[in-house]
Amino acid sequence: MKKYDLAIIGAGPAGMSAALNAKNDNLKFILYEAKEAGWFPRVSVDSHYTVDNYLGFSAISGSELIKKFRKHLTRNKIFVDNNCVHNARLEKNKFIMTLTDKEIIADLVILCTGTYQKKLGVSEIDKFLGKSVFYYCVPDGNQFINKKVFVVGGRNTGAVTAIYLKNIGCDVEIIEKDPQLNCKDKYGEKITDLSIPVRTSSQIISLNGDEILEGINVKGPEGLETLVTDGIFVCIGLNPNNDLAKKLNVELDKWGYVKVDNNMATNVAGVYAAGDITGNLKQISVAVGQGSIAEYNINKFLREKWKKE
Amino acid sequence: MKKYDLAIIGAGPAGMSAALNAKNDNLKFILYEAKEAGWFPRVSVDSHYTVDNYLGFSAISGSELIKKFRKHLTRNKIFVDNNCVHNARLEKNKFIMTLTDKEIIADLVILCTGTYQKKLGVSEIDKFLGKSVFYYCVPDGNQFINKKVFVVGGRNTGAVTAIYLKNIGCDVEIIEKDPQLNCKDKYGEKITDLSIPVRTSSQIISLNGDEILEGINVKGPEGLETLVTDGIFVCIGLNPNNDLAKKLNVELDKWGYVKVDNNMATNVAGVYAAGDITGNLKQISVAVGQGSIAEYNINKFLREKWKKE
Repeated sequence: MKKYDLAIIGAGPAGMSAALNAKNDNLKFILYEAKEAGWFPRVSVDSHYTVDNYLGFSAISGSELIKKFRKHLTRNKIFVDNNCVHNARLEKNKFIMTLTDKEIIADLVILCTGTYQKKLGVSEIDKFLGKSVFYYCVPDGNQFINKKVFVVGGRNTGAVTAIYLKNIGCDVEIIEKDPQLNCKDKYGEKITDLSIPVRTSSQIISLNGDEILEGINVKGPEGLETLVTDGIFVCIGLNPNNDLAKKLNVELDKWGYVKVDNNMATNVAGVYAAGDITGNLKQISVAVGQGSIAEYNINKFLREKWKKE
Repeated sequence: MKKYDLAIIGAGPAGMSAALNAKNDNLKFILYEAKEAGWFPRVSVDSHYTVDNYLGFSAISGSELIKKFRKHLTRNKIFVDNNCVHNARLEKNKFIMTLTDKEIIADLVILCTGTYQKKLGVSEIDKFLGKSVFYYCVPDGNQFINKKVFVVGGRNTGAVTAIYLKNIGCDVEIIEKDPQLNCKDKYGEKITDLSIPVRTSSQIISLNGDEILEGINVKGPEGLETLVTDGIFVCIGLNPNNDLAKKLNVELDKWGYVKVDNNMATNVAGVYAAGDITGNLKQISVAVGQGSIAEYNINKFLREKWKKE
């Protein structure tokens, strides 16, 4: 079984930042990412708008920023292991990680497992997934140019998605369950400028169609309505990816996010967390800073332990 | 008196990040910096080494990174006000800031006042300041090429300073009060490689010389010794710049750093803090993330307040 000082689970901005610092501190670590390294939740929409709140990069697209992040890791000779961590357990003060075909052992763990998109609770929705129902719009939006689509959710991601779809030529409408949009003013203004219709206090109840989505049944202030559509884009928020946290008996808050202290330590000795999984502000800068703090405290812990040995 | 939603005090990485976010949120804010915008404590040494732990910028010099930060602000039409904030007080739920020749009023405040270098507690040291005694080495190091200098302090900044001075051709020695250096392994190894002598368990007791420093009296394991030197570079740590925090009755920890909660709020309603002043890990990424969190919560607070008005 391969042994490491540190296993970093997830290579979004938090995990990447932790890895950079671990490399600087000469730790023996492994960085796991089952999906795409560097990816963060809004990258699909931000690729068409811009990230403008990560100090040092003015108005950069999400995909360009990811490239910079990956290049930084590559230049520092940090490589991402694309194995998926299926299970984690504590055994004699060490953490055993189960991958698809092997196990590894680590002294300490940082959970940077982020979030996944909340699913729309409508029966049989999965049969339309990837064909007419999407949880992110890029590049799937292109197939709906000159067609009718609904964006579900009027927070920032929903707003940005609707604006993007409108701009590429879709006939888009927003459905929001609250009595008003809950996005930033600048997005709200853009939605008005582009004359994107908004159905507030409304929710999708069921979907029509067999192989192909034909319409949606919406409950709103006027009662129940059936609306014809070619596709829907669901942007109703994020849930924490807390499977491994649960397996390690890490304490979660009432929304399922991992509770951490100022050092990014969880209640389980040796388990740290950083990034969106901690439930703080979901912004790249925050994830990057938290990744640094987690690694700093881990390095300090290890140096003190090694001195005693 | 000019009125603002938000006054950001200090334009290091934390203040700059808060300002970027405040601009995105259309807040009416002002960003004060009495010294050099973007500056962070290790920039003088990092300009000759590199910052390599801020995700996205691989091995960049401190001064180059500052330029990127400033450029980001300029492109977003954020300008730094170089007035010094001498005083701050709370009056009818608003904060009044006293500048050199005027006052301004703000609904909320973020303290990003950072730290200053700890002074060496040796009598009459100030008369040598800027001539033979320095608290940062760049560009002052150049005048000591082929001369004898001591670096006081064997933590990271002291180590990096000694390495830099050795590399430009100074005859450098380190004085550390602890029994060993407390820097990262990679710096320790470099110090050994370069054969930089280290006097551990030693402290400067007094200085000799009238206008020009002639020597130092050092108490060490062998007793008291007088050593001839041309200059000393003091790198013994940082203290929080907490004057304004004290004036606003903000709670401090036992080291004088501002206590904040997860939202970067202090005990005084309306006063937030971000960056090194909070006493967490002193790293750019952390300051940038905290600046974002502080602004996010301030914006949320203001939007809710305005909705009620």
